[in-house]
Amino acid sequence: MSRRRQIYEGKAKILYEGPEPGTIIQYFKDDATAFNAQKRGTIQGKGVINNRISEYVFTRLSHIGIPTHFIRRLNMREQLVRQVEIIPIEVVVRNVAAGSISTRLGIPEGEPLPHTLIEYYYKDDALGDPLIAEEHIACFGWATNEEMQDISSMAIRVNDFLCGMFAAIGIRLVDFKLEFGRMWDGDYSRVILADEISPDGCRLWDILTGEKLDKDRFRRDLGGEEEAYQEVARRLGLLQDEGVTSEVFDLSKHRKLRGK
Amino acid sequence: MSRRRQIYEGKAKILYEGPEPGTIIQYFKDDATAFNAQKRGTIQGKGVINNRISEYVFTRLSHIGIPTHFIRRLNMREQLVRQVEIIPIEVVVRNVAAGSISTRLGIPEGEPLPHTLIEYYYKDDALGDPLIAEEHIACFGWATNEEMQDISSMAIRVNDFLCGMFAAIGIRLVDFKLEFGRMWDGDYSRVILADEISPDGCRLWDILTGEKLDKDRFRRDLGGEEEAYQEVARRLGLLQDEGVTSEVFDLSKHRKLRGK
Repeated sequence: MSRRRQIYEGKAKILYEGPEPGTIIQYFKDDATAFNAQKRGTIQGKGVINNRISEYVFTRLSHIGIPTHFIRRLNMREQLVRQVEIIPIEVVVRNVAAGSISTRLGIPEGEPLPHTLIEYYYKDDALGDPLIAEEHIACFGWATNEEMQDISSMAIRVNDFLCGMFAAIGIRLVDFKLEFGRMWDGDYSRVILADEISPDGCRLWDILTGEKLDKDRFRRDLGGEEEAYQEVARRLGLLQDEGVTSEVFDLSKHRKLRGK
Repeated sequence: MSRRRQIYEGKAKILYEGPEPGTIIQYFKDDATAFNAQKRGTIQGKGVINNRISEYVFTRLSHIGIPTHFIRRLNMREQLVRQVEIIPIEVVVRNVAAGSISTRLGIPEGEPLPHTLIEYYYKDDALGDPLIAEEHIACFGWATNEEMQDISSMAIRVNDFLCGMFAAIGIRLVDFKLEFGRMWDGDYSRVILADEISPDGCRLWDILTGEKLDKDRFRRDLGGEEEAYQEVARRLGLLQDEGVTSEVFDLSKHRKLRGK
């Protein structure tokens, strides 16, 4: 385990070289950051839950035809994914005003938007992930027009799916962040969904009480962040199954199981 | 004169009710503001020069088929324009990185952009005119898709024209701001160029020396702002003619001349 090569350490995940060419292992940390990493902390067990929730969501998104980087979960904190060239754009889909859009445009938090809004941010920690428009993306060549068409139509489909999924378990999907990657096949590339989908990058409010079940509990010092993440996993039926609580098999075992 | 109704006082202009329905008088002040009016001052004679430069530019833009609100200049500080419903979007056209885009996206000031970039800002002083994308404009209904098509194609044409015009007098057009208005004719409306085009809303650099000939002299305490504005007017041939230095005829005289 110790010999595998670390490719990148981000705020919530570490990426390792995968067992086969073109694969990556995503390791989910408990580290939590907010406000462009000015606030740092830990949410106990977050990595385990996010790994499991993201597996659940990506697997079901692939069932409706959304191409994703997800291959399979390896253990409590790790999942095997396809290696992609990350497109340096954070795609934020908003159904209800909250967070930065409320302050930026003066829209009261909790006000439903006239219709679903897609925002793009330039993925650059040093610049604080600034808001950008498609014009910037085209001007600086961060993605092609064709890629942006794929990205926006996938973002809308993911939003529709997630709205349904969360509504079914009494949760209102306020907004969420997506990242996409470019997968090369010779000279040809296609865009697939990458990164993760978890309460780290979503705003999830209980439909009846409005209680926040996401990273805003950490951002805003509301407390109970561990319980909130667990509650989302529990409602998705992920605490009852073999997933989060008991399954621990490390990568070496897993490789043996697969006959490697 | 004192009885005419003031409609609006902005940072650099006052709008009065015009002599005929559907007209407005734009009065150009010497007041200068920067950084969302946190910095305030005066540039002596600025109003007179901007009135004259804006007349010059809008007149020539109409000759290439850009519809504008400009009707005619009335006197040193006033021009008669068509009344429009201002679209609450500031359209910024950039050829070279400078100002907010340099800090926001980390592009060194003076670096030519890969290609001309159009940015949109929500016109709201209280919010500090935040950057927006076409998605926000569509979501909040600030303009229709058709209007945005008209606006972006006019912005590009205006940029081409102004680049040529300024190049001819040894000035590099770094960036500039446009505003557009909706003119109603029954149930039908069309978009026309409104506001003003002057060194207040442009970045103009001398092609050879790089010297700033615009409001950045005021913003950045460089001094010599009066001379810079005059230099632009002089190069455009506007200090030699009957325009800026000698022509003073007030609105009442003008009305008499027109037989009213």
